[in-house]
Amino acid sequence: MIAEVLTIGTELLLGQTVDSNAPAIASSISSIGIEVRYHVTVGDNLKTIIDALTTALGRSDIVITTGGLGLTADDLTREAIAEVCGLKLPGKKGMPPEEARLLKNMVGTALPFALKIDSKLIIALPGPPSEMRSVLQTEVLPLLGSLPGRKGKVILSRSLKVCGLRESAVEEETRVALPTWSDFTGGNPVISFSAHPGEVVIRITSKADSQEDALSMINPVERAIRERLAWRVFGANEETLEQAVGNVLRERGLRVALAESCTGGLVGHRITAVSGSSAYFQLGAVVYANEAKECLLDVPGKTLKEWGAVSRQTAEAMAVGVKRLSGADIGVAITGIAGPEGATPGKPVGTVYFGLAAPEGIWWRHRVFPGDRDTVKKWAAQEALTFLWDCLHVPDRLSEGGLCSGDAGLCGHSD
Amino acid sequence: MIAEVLTIGTELLLGQTVDSNAPAIASSISSIGIEVRYHVTVGDNLKTIIDALTTALGRSDIVITTGGLGLTADDLTREAIAEVCGLKLPGKKGMPPEEARLLKNMVGTALPFALKIDSKLIIALPGPPSEMRSVLQTEVLPLLGSLPGRKGKVILSRSLKVCGLRESAVEEETRVALPTWSDFTGGNPVISFSAHPGEVVIRITSKADSQEDALSMINPVERAIRERLAWRVFGANEETLEQAVGNVLRERGLRVALAESCTGGLVGHRITAVSGSSAYFQLGAVVYANEAKECLLDVPGKTLKEWGAVSRQTAEAMAVGVKRLSGADIGVAITGIAGPEGATPGKPVGTVYFGLAAPEGIWWRHRVFPGDRDTVKKWAAQEALTFLWDCLHVPDRLSEGGLCSGDAGLCGHSD
Repeated sequence: MIAEVLTIGTELLLGQTVDSNAPAIASSISSIGIEVRYHVTVGDNLKTIIDALTTALGRSDIVITTGGLGLTADDLTREAIAEVCGLKLPGKKGMPPEEARLLKNMVGTALPFALKIDSKLIIALPGPPSEMRSVLQTEVLPLLGSLPGRKGKVILSRSLKVCGLRESAVEEETRVALPTWSDFTGGNPVISFSAHPGEVVIRITSKADSQEDALSMINPVERAIRERLAWRVFGANEETLEQAVGNVLRERGLRVALAESCTGGLVGHRITAVSGSSAYFQLGAVVYANEAKECLLDVPGKTLKEWGAVSRQTAEAMAVGVKRLSGADIGVAITGIAGPEGATPGKPVGTVYFGLAAPEGIWWRHRVFPGDRDTVKKWAAQEALTFLWDCLHVPDRLSEGGLCSGDAGLCGHSD
Repeated sequence: MIAEVLTIGTELLLGQTVDSNAPAIASSISSIGIEVRYHVTVGDNLKTIIDALTTALGRSDIVITTGGLGLTADDLTREAIAEVCGLKLPGKKGMPPEEARLLKNMVGTALPFALKIDSKLIIALPGPPSEMRSVLQTEVLPLLGSLPGRKGKVILSRSLKVCGLRESAVEEETRVALPTWSDFTGGNPVISFSAHPGEVVIRITSKADSQEDALSMINPVERAIRERLAWRVFGANEETLEQAVGNVLRERGLRVALAESCTGGLVGHRITAVSGSSAYFQLGAVVYANEAKECLLDVPGKTLKEWGAVSRQTAEAMAVGVKRLSGADIGVAITGIAGPEGATPGKPVGTVYFGLAAPEGIWWRHRVFPGDRDTVKKWAAQEALTFLWDCLHVPDRLSEGGLCSGDAGLCGHSD
């Protein structure tokens, strides 16, 4: 059974509002075995809505619309559906065609409805996300779940999240992990990859007759990939690197402190996004100015003068300084050039040095990240957490080049 | 001229990622007089992409795709376009059809392209939003702007951004500013409101034959609203509160320092998101632990014990402490309960105290924000910047209740 989501609203079409309804509908209904093949968005224009509905009914079994159920002149969904289905609307404003079955809306005043027309099912939901979600949960999912003709497959997916490796390396390792697997995209499960700054997501999506069957197809693939990539897989699904790092710190009773320059507080923000992080996060020093690096963290003026604020030496001194200042077990430092200004000969925009001071020693990393200011900050924050993650897992290998993802990666160890 | 946006990616279709590309494309190209009539989203499935492309080319003059330009097996956009257009792909991996014109991508490695086929134009853009936006700005808009056949209405909009007032108050003030304006949604320009944590956006959208005509409809409305809301309008369009605050600090030669507890570095991250912020951002101290508040910022142990870490007294002491430590002109402090744990009797989750130490005196604010941990952090960061913004504009009114947006707002002044 194929479903299509049709979101209606000029504000969506013109990009004034980001559509969160379609994703919510798609992920819900694909988990109960209905395939969503298209999302379409159109504006509050009767002719276009009618065209889109007609196209949708031609290629999909179920069409779920959102929006256009209010009482103002630009609410045209009822009219378009009546027109396409050859039905009349009751005189009363805001009411659906008489043939439709009203769906309960416990959160708002719009009147959502379901309408069977020939072998097709049209479901019209309100646009406001809280109303839409409520009706989806309480009315639509039970309705779709009870459809006799639902023969579609259940789609389930699990994401494995990897730090410290590029997308191509992750794909290669995954192929090694699954030597008999020739077809990543045509098979079942499907395996796909997506890259984000400093993070690669391996998504395993299976299609089966039941949720149990779908899981039993995902599990062995997940096991093989986890075995191959080992600690490089820091989490699954919604888990973040800061959560994963936090779990290890908490388990081992370790406390961390941060000295952030170019990331400006982003690493601290991410670490404290995790509830309970006060158990292992001691202090963050956002030392944007050189004076702050000197006065607060005891970075020697000589180091700053001789090597510059963006240097291996300064990063190391910052890490040592914040560890000492805070009394934490591990100090992590980030100093770099987020751009667009600030580049110097030999240090282009995107150059970032990391320092890590732990009881076992002091390490550094050097990276050159691509992208604009915001992207460089994101990459740098992710790499700082990755450095910490690596330190917690392979402390004896922190000087290995392979641990610095990316071409420009250099790293080392100071006594 | 009708355009259609086709976003490609199973993660979008299944709702695993919210599509921010389509809105960005739609709002950009509708501002240069090209009507966007459809957004369509499909998964990484060759047949479906081909079907969607065929439908799009049948009803639209311009089809803009995003995604599927990478090097992995599930990147199928090139293949689908070649198939639909009856073209061959070069043997080299990642290259578009030879007939296509490559578009410069200054931010990433994917190769976006434009292809003219009969009277239709296909533009294939990368999926990662930062890459997509860069290519859209530098390549696509100039290309579309130069098309001879462009005849549609120009839709322009301007957003005015307001801090420190609730949505209902902003709407009321706007009605007072425009006494002859009876119809906010049916008129031309249309005026609409949207609320975000600590920020309300007033959007003025006009439709006209030319950019000049559209602007001349927006300008008087904008002037009237700005006159009424005065310094409460901190910026327009993409301008952020941290940029606006930064501009004032830079102009006046003032330096600021932060003491962040529950925001964990988010305020520093926002301030340093602005290029050149090192000119006015002296130091951020993320003092999550009580020890850090005491040792680093000299918050008296007695204050922490007597009033608690989340209190007016601690917020003030933190602000004073970070101002002294850093030598900055203004110290801003945030301490609160982001949740979901940590509530105490009389201090529910969402309780946040702010302190501000300036040469003229010391002020505090108390707010109780709604929402989960992430939302409370966002509200708190926005309110900290609003506190600073108010201090820079109405320093003599900082103790007024009206300056604390929200029901739970309390504020005051200490000697």
